[in-house]
Amino acid sequence: MEGLRKFVFYSLVSVATVMCHFGTCEAGQGEALTKLMKAKMTGESRVEMVQKWESFGEVARALPQHGLKEKDEIVGGLHGQPEGVEFKQYAGYVTLDETAGRALFYYFAEAVDPLSKPLLLWLNGGPGCSSLGYGAMEELGPFRVQSDGKTLYKNRYAWNKAANVLFLESPAGVGFSYSNTTSDYELSGDSRTASDAYTFLINWFERFPEYKNRDFYISGESYAGHYVPQLAYQVLSHNQKAGKTIINLKGIAIGNAVINDETDGPGMYDYFWNHAFISDETIGAIHKYCDFSPNATSQNQQCHDAAREADKNVNPIDIYNIYAPLCNFSGFTHKPHKRVVLEFDPCTDYYVDNYLNLPEVQKAFHANVTRLNYPWSACSDIITHWNDSPSTILPLLKDFMANGIRVLVYSGDTDGRVPVTGTRYSLNMLNLSVKTPWYPWYTRKEVGGYSVIYNGGLTFATVRGAGHEVPSYQPARSLTLVNAFLKGKPLPRP
Amino acid sequence: MEGLRKFVFYSLVSVATVMCHFGTCEAGQGEALTKLMKAKMTGESRVEMVQKWESFGEVARALPQHGLKEKDEIVGGLHGQPEGVEFKQYAGYVTLDETAGRALFYYFAEAVDPLSKPLLLWLNGGPGCSSLGYGAMEELGPFRVQSDGKTLYKNRYAWNKAANVLFLESPAGVGFSYSNTTSDYELSGDSRTASDAYTFLINWFERFPEYKNRDFYISGESYAGHYVPQLAYQVLSHNQKAGKTIINLKGIAIGNAVINDETDGPGMYDYFWNHAFISDETIGAIHKYCDFSPNATSQNQQCHDAAREADKNVNPIDIYNIYAPLCNFSGFTHKPHKRVVLEFDPCTDYYVDNYLNLPEVQKAFHANVTRLNYPWSACSDIITHWNDSPSTILPLLKDFMANGIRVLVYSGDTDGRVPVTGTRYSLNMLNLSVKTPWYPWYTRKEVGGYSVIYNGGLTFATVRGAGHEVPSYQPARSLTLVNAFLKGKPLPRP
Repeated sequence: MEGLRKFVFYSLVSVATVMCHFGTCEAGQGEALTKLMKAKMTGESRVEMVQKWESFGEVARALPQHGLKEKDEIVGGLHGQPEGVEFKQYAGYVTLDETAGRALFYYFAEAVDPLSKPLLLWLNGGPGCSSLGYGAMEELGPFRVQSDGKTLYKNRYAWNKAANVLFLESPAGVGFSYSNTTSDYELSGDSRTASDAYTFLINWFERFPEYKNRDFYISGESYAGHYVPQLAYQVLSHNQKAGKTIINLKGIAIGNAVINDETDGPGMYDYFWNHAFISDETIGAIHKYCDFSPNATSQNQQCHDAAREADKNVNPIDIYNIYAPLCNFSGFTHKPHKRVVLEFDPCTDYYVDNYLNLPEVQKAFHANVTRLNYPWSACSDIITHWNDSPSTILPLLKDFMANGIRVLVYSGDTDGRVPVTGTRYSLNMLNLSVKTPWYPWYTRKEVGGYSVIYNGGLTFATVRGAGHEVPSYQPARSLTLVNAFLKGKPLPRP
Repeated sequence: MEGLRKFVFYSLVSVATVMCHFGTCEAGQGEALTKLMKAKMTGESRVEMVQKWESFGEVARALPQHGLKEKDEIVGGLHGQPEGVEFKQYAGYVTLDETAGRALFYYFAEAVDPLSKPLLLWLNGGPGCSSLGYGAMEELGPFRVQSDGKTLYKNRYAWNKAANVLFLESPAGVGFSYSNTTSDYELSGDSRTASDAYTFLINWFERFPEYKNRDFYISGESYAGHYVPQLAYQVLSHNQKAGKTIINLKGIAIGNAVINDETDGPGMYDYFWNHAFISDETIGAIHKYCDFSPNATSQNQQCHDAAREADKNVNPIDIYNIYAPLCNFSGFTHKPHKRVVLEFDPCTDYYVDNYLNLPEVQKAFHANVTRLNYPWSACSDIITHWNDSPSTILPLLKDFMANGIRVLVYSGDTDGRVPVTGTRYSLNMLNLSVKTPWYPWYTRKEVGGYSVIYNGGLTFATVRGAGHEVPSYQPARSLTLVNAFLKGKPLPRP
């Protein structure tokens, strides 16, 4: 099952883990990302580590969008969707570059009462993983795929109860998003991802003009800890340059997010130790021998050995949700299993993969109209190189706070890949002063997690018992979280 | 629900937590233990902190036991037990002191093939909590109580698959164990508990002579981290004094065990921080201001404040199993719920309390023959003072290793009360050399936890996803654990 998992760009000094269990494993994306990670930590490749935010801000051109919204509406509903769906859905392509033939795929789940709700963009990370396959189909979207791989059931805690939710597969080469000019894929990186996403938004607002002045939020998880702030920075820069509000950005939310290599790295290993997965000797060697600074161009043998030992210890568990059972995969069920949205099925990746490759599903989604010569997959095999990835996005968070943009940083506390420990270390680098001290917040009469609010408008929140994909593992808690975020309110006390 | 929980003698410098949630809470035992804890940490009371092991070793006298075994057999089975029970059960009293009228209650679940299996004693801690109510009825015993509070279902992972298991309610004043001389209760403490348990054993072996030369193991959890080693020390001392093997002790096993105040204390707070339950400021203050050394006779105000803040943050969750749901108690069900032994029902304490107070149940158990003037309860309200509790039992562990007694120390890794972090700190104090380095061990094709074996015969093992009562939360993993322990084998690799 793990082979299909989002492979977070994050195993640092060791040869990145190819997550395989008991036979079933697809190494493609894992290998591509191993290269990327190694490149980033050893300085041996072309990956740029410097921030390229200054270069953002080319004028984005909106193409004519007339009639496209109507064409994009999913009129008969998604294939296999349950009865009684009371909100509208749209899906389709937004062309970014007509010459290159570069287009990004989106899926848009409106709220039941769309006019009264803000607009929320959701981005998954990787880099190279799909917001449709993860975010929409197994996290916060309105439906989950049944164990038959063909039909859907309702997610009672979908985020379109709180907002109109837009899922974007990004950059080109991910999921159904593509370019007809394959050399485009060689330009993949943080900078291109952000500028293409911005161009997407400008065009999408043209297609859905009723959302143009709507309160707008950008959210995402994992490597989207890079995507979200960089896209938000584009939005702010363009507004500033234009001297007016082109996009009405109110806030950003990032979960289990890669944000600062220097602290995320030690944070991950410390989490491994303090959750009793690695030995005292291993954590001791990592502290002693590994160099997590962005200037590190190589790691010594002792560091490699210790990181390899750590990998050996954590590889056999689902490091994205450390106490979860593994998927004991044995095909699809004839009839769907009993579905319990509060208990995440660890085989969901397989159901989603099957579902999104059904021709009738792709037709309903208005997807794959150019007949891609490869199947839809959760993480891209097409993008083989990542050009730029700054070592930190913390300065952007400071910038947003100074500009009145709300910032929510959250951590599912049972994720070992980009864990809460690293995120706390990272936030400490900001030296913020506390406005509302650390306290437990509540959902359904239980502690949903803990939260602290800093002066300047940054909220940090944990989600108790949630893995890397927070809405998958704690749907009710995640809905409370996003509701509070969108309303600009502190997370609820009992 | 939490009011009925075993109240571990362990909240250190703060006013100990009375575990109450949403109305239902019984503070009695919590309050008694708060006094005890405070006394221990502030030196303001009569609790002796010095080890009293030297004084162990008075000659234990066995009373005649003829015919008592036969009387103790539970011939018709326990009240409400399921069909197809293929092992024998015994229960009853062993008199320790005829004059005082002091007697300890035991429940003995034989293995299906009793002759081929060793004998294992199980002790719960508190101090003052019942091995019948916890160990037997909701942890490792052959049955669990159904949600109707009246009937039983089978525990497929009961430890009597691996051994003949003897549960002892100890000391007098706990559960069904009693003294007719109430001043006896004022002598309660580690030392009395150990010497009475030894006298119990001598008499019990007289009653069950076929077990006299059997391989014998002592196990327990929580404050039994004190009971188990101290009883084992008694066994060894008497053997030595007698110059022969009176009791054939082979090993001890202690889980989430209170073993060394100086490290257990910081370990608990560090666990709170590294599981993201308390703030950076709180852990900072605890490190800075609290004195966990056994010599500490008082704590300053900053320490009290920080500990109180930590309590405030962790009290609303089940600190004995940090990700578990709380019991939303609303009486007993008419028909039992679907029973899933692998999914622990957080309301189990209530079912057990009801069950053990049914007259027909007490009759089957041959319990409460003197008509105690108070109901059975999971933790004692009768013992109000604890006289002695050494600050460490680490020297005993060294002693056992030197004498060829196998030692297993294990930690359910989602227990926050006596957590894995503290236990690792404590074991590090022993300065042992590693024989088999840290590795993941397996049950049912998944990682059951991690283990390291030290030279000298001490094994440390974690149990992944298990709370304070390991066999409750991870029954299959706990059975693998005890099987390996009893066979003297390392925990299994894949």
